[in-house]
Amino acid sequence: MKSVLVKEIYRNTEKYIDENVVVSGWVRTIRSSKSFGFIELNDGSFFKNIQIVFEDNLDNFKEISKLPISTAIKVEGLLVATPNNKQPFEIKAKSITIEAESDKDYPLQKKRHTFEYLRTIAHLRPRSNTFSAVFRVRSLVAYAIHKFFQERGFVYVHTPIITGSDCEGAGEMFRVTTLDFDNLPLDENGKVDFKKDFFGKETNLTVSGQLNVEAYALAFRNVYTFGPTFRAENSNTARHAAEFWMIEPEIAFADLKDDMELAEEMLKYIINFVLENAPEEMEFFNKFIDKGLLERLNNIVNSDFERITYTEAIDILKKSNKNFQYPVEWGNDLQTEHERYITEEVFNKPVFVTDYPKDIKAFYMRLNDDEKTVAAMDLLVPGVGEIIGGSQREERHDILVNRMKEMGLKQEDYWWYLELRRYGGVKHAGYGLGFERAIMYLTGMTNIRDVIPYPRTPRTAEF
Amino acid sequence: MKSVLVKEIYRNTEKYIDENVVVSGWVRTIRSSKSFGFIELNDGSFFKNIQIVFEDNLDNFKEISKLPISTAIKVEGLLVATPNNKQPFEIKAKSITIEAESDKDYPLQKKRHTFEYLRTIAHLRPRSNTFSAVFRVRSLVAYAIHKFFQERGFVYVHTPIITGSDCEGAGEMFRVTTLDFDNLPLDENGKVDFKKDFFGKETNLTVSGQLNVEAYALAFRNVYTFGPTFRAENSNTARHAAEFWMIEPEIAFADLKDDMELAEEMLKYIINFVLENAPEEMEFFNKFIDKGLLERLNNIVNSDFERITYTEAIDILKKSNKNFQYPVEWGNDLQTEHERYITEEVFNKPVFVTDYPKDIKAFYMRLNDDEKTVAAMDLLVPGVGEIIGGSQREERHDILVNRMKEMGLKQEDYWWYLELRRYGGVKHAGYGLGFERAIMYLTGMTNIRDVIPYPRTPRTAEF
Repeated sequence: MKSVLVKEIYRNTEKYIDENVVVSGWVRTIRSSKSFGFIELNDGSFFKNIQIVFEDNLDNFKEISKLPISTAIKVEGLLVATPNNKQPFEIKAKSITIEAESDKDYPLQKKRHTFEYLRTIAHLRPRSNTFSAVFRVRSLVAYAIHKFFQERGFVYVHTPIITGSDCEGAGEMFRVTTLDFDNLPLDENGKVDFKKDFFGKETNLTVSGQLNVEAYALAFRNVYTFGPTFRAENSNTARHAAEFWMIEPEIAFADLKDDMELAEEMLKYIINFVLENAPEEMEFFNKFIDKGLLERLNNIVNSDFERITYTEAIDILKKSNKNFQYPVEWGNDLQTEHERYITEEVFNKPVFVTDYPKDIKAFYMRLNDDEKTVAAMDLLVPGVGEIIGGSQREERHDILVNRMKEMGLKQEDYWWYLELRRYGGVKHAGYGLGFERAIMYLTGMTNIRDVIPYPRTPRTAEF
Repeated sequence: MKSVLVKEIYRNTEKYIDENVVVSGWVRTIRSSKSFGFIELNDGSFFKNIQIVFEDNLDNFKEISKLPISTAIKVEGLLVATPNNKQPFEIKAKSITIEAESDKDYPLQKKRHTFEYLRTIAHLRPRSNTFSAVFRVRSLVAYAIHKFFQERGFVYVHTPIITGSDCEGAGEMFRVTTLDFDNLPLDENGKVDFKKDFFGKETNLTVSGQLNVEAYALAFRNVYTFGPTFRAENSNTARHAAEFWMIEPEIAFADLKDDMELAEEMLKYIINFVLENAPEEMEFFNKFIDKGLLERLNNIVNSDFERITYTEAIDILKKSNKNFQYPVEWGNDLQTEHERYITEEVFNKPVFVTDYPKDIKAFYMRLNDDEKTVAAMDLLVPGVGEIIGGSQREERHDILVNRMKEMGLKQEDYWWYLELRRYGGVKHAGYGLGFERAIMYLTGMTNIRDVIPYPRTPRTAEF
């Protein structure tokens, strides 16, 4: 008999009640007395365990009674309804086969562990309730994102990970090299000769696929990236990782308004998708990780996101009479405290802030007619602050060249990016969503290290 | 009026015939006489163009007549059926607005270009027929892969890109570093001091997520990775890139037989998905790129894949009386010529070859009872040879340790991988599919540089 997934039993219970079933999984807990015992079995297919009842009519009753946690077993038995118990059904075992017995020093015993400790056993933590929920939701959200864009005809583009350029000069980058450190080739000036490196020049890990994907938006109209990006910043905060995934849609024949509509639709779609497809996990987060989670997410799905300009935001902040740590002044970037005040206290829903001063934004953002602001947008959400950042791109060749000059960027480094403006470079826009930030937001987890299977942070690249 | 996507018009034609529509897109070709003209317009949403007819009743008729290729325009007009023409319908323009006029030196004029030349304009080539088809199919295949696994409850795992370990010692790796090359820190022995590097040790770009994802299979049972992997090999062939994407499913409570069933089901699913969702593109490939393509793919979908052992394969090759370039000898790896002979000439369908000599396979593959072979499988397909490689993993702690010793691997580097064998490390199996190889196979494109948006190969990291 082939084993059936525990998820299948939970989702189509009627089909299996009073039937013989075979399940395979790992022992999460075991209790036994002289003549019978209970096993909570988890097979990985589902957040919840299935209860196994076994009795001393089994040949190997004694052996089973003493099984260490995390042992892999195969159970054949009758699925019976248990309407008066906590769990809706259980399996009365007819046979239990040991597939792989665990050593007794298994580190994930029943007692609670700190998230910090669990990070040191990243190879085992997905077997705990919290991380089983986190990483299943992570997988579902990734799928929801693909589904959302593909159903709308967007083309998924794999932009390069290794790059010879430094998009928008954003932050510090990791160098990629095959040069021998003990024997670096030098050029005639005694400098390291990158012509001898694998790619014949200096290369780094990408910080964004945006510039590359713009070229594809001008071919396919609606496109998106979803891939890893990197920051070599020495930030040891709960919200920064050196390696994280990012989603960057880009749409042509579109302006900032279209961009915001897309972002709002996408975020609501993702939330609905996880609420529908991971109800058990979301309930768990709401109960044990973040008590306001479901209310907050339902609030987002049911609101029309607010739209205000940066200038209006500054006005609101100035009139608030709040004592902010960072000064509120037109021309300064908004800090998290400002963002959270606006989205939580003023509007209590997601807020797009648009049209930021050009001097605090990137060179590729479209200059507004006031020549002081650019067509940028940040989406602020309660509980977090900024979760999405985007802009309409500067499609006018000469204005873009001017902005690049102002910011000290070399035109020859961007020859192809500038060419896009010469060959039908119609208006277009896009945004970036940090995938891990989204997962944190959707689960209530507060440390980015706890939503990445094997996190990379300063001085940490284990496993 | 909002513009409608050209794909929507092709797919739901009845809805739009004899209606006013607005479309936006780029001029692919333009022909005009004194009083009327034709534009082939492509809006990126669909492989095919839509024909626009314009006449001298337009105010800007003269300007439109002279529009350079690749200009972005917006057209409002009546969609009329043209049953006697090559194209099924056309738009009779009532107005044409220029959204972004192209410069006249647009490099992608109508004449045919070589693929080599088009690689030098990677930012523009997705606008050509071939690359528009390639990259839309690439996107659809990526989606098909996610859909296949997610519909079966597999959990998508993002394994790390930056790694401190060297999985299976597979090939040369790229180093990732933030050390200053002009000022490398040295330790007391005068060696480069990697303790001062970003992660406090030597790190590289991953060559495979398999070891990492095995831990997740032992938590979630059925999992997969889909991410970029890297090889710093100085191979300038049509089939090697330094950066490519890989899919690695891993299944627990499963053996090599289950592994092969999954691979067969997945491959058929992907092929059916692109045949269904990109019929125009696939027809184009079949006509202009690879005349046997559709027949070959249909053959795959409709065959039961063959299964033979490596030992049987050697027998077949020896009895073939073919003059192979590489000698056929038990213990040698199969070369592409051997693989293609078996899959094309002997069976004329996909063939799994299993149970290879242990000495030519990786340390983690499960040792068979004969102690000479391992539970490995390669899937060979006509036209290509090997497209998938997989194995059942060695789940027995002591045998794994022995194999590692034999191969000179340090146990302490694999402490967590070994621990998986101590804590319910039930039998499990998996395989790897090179994404670009699959795209080449599905499109008939013969150079890997032509199925990656911005390819990275030795001495090439442009754009």
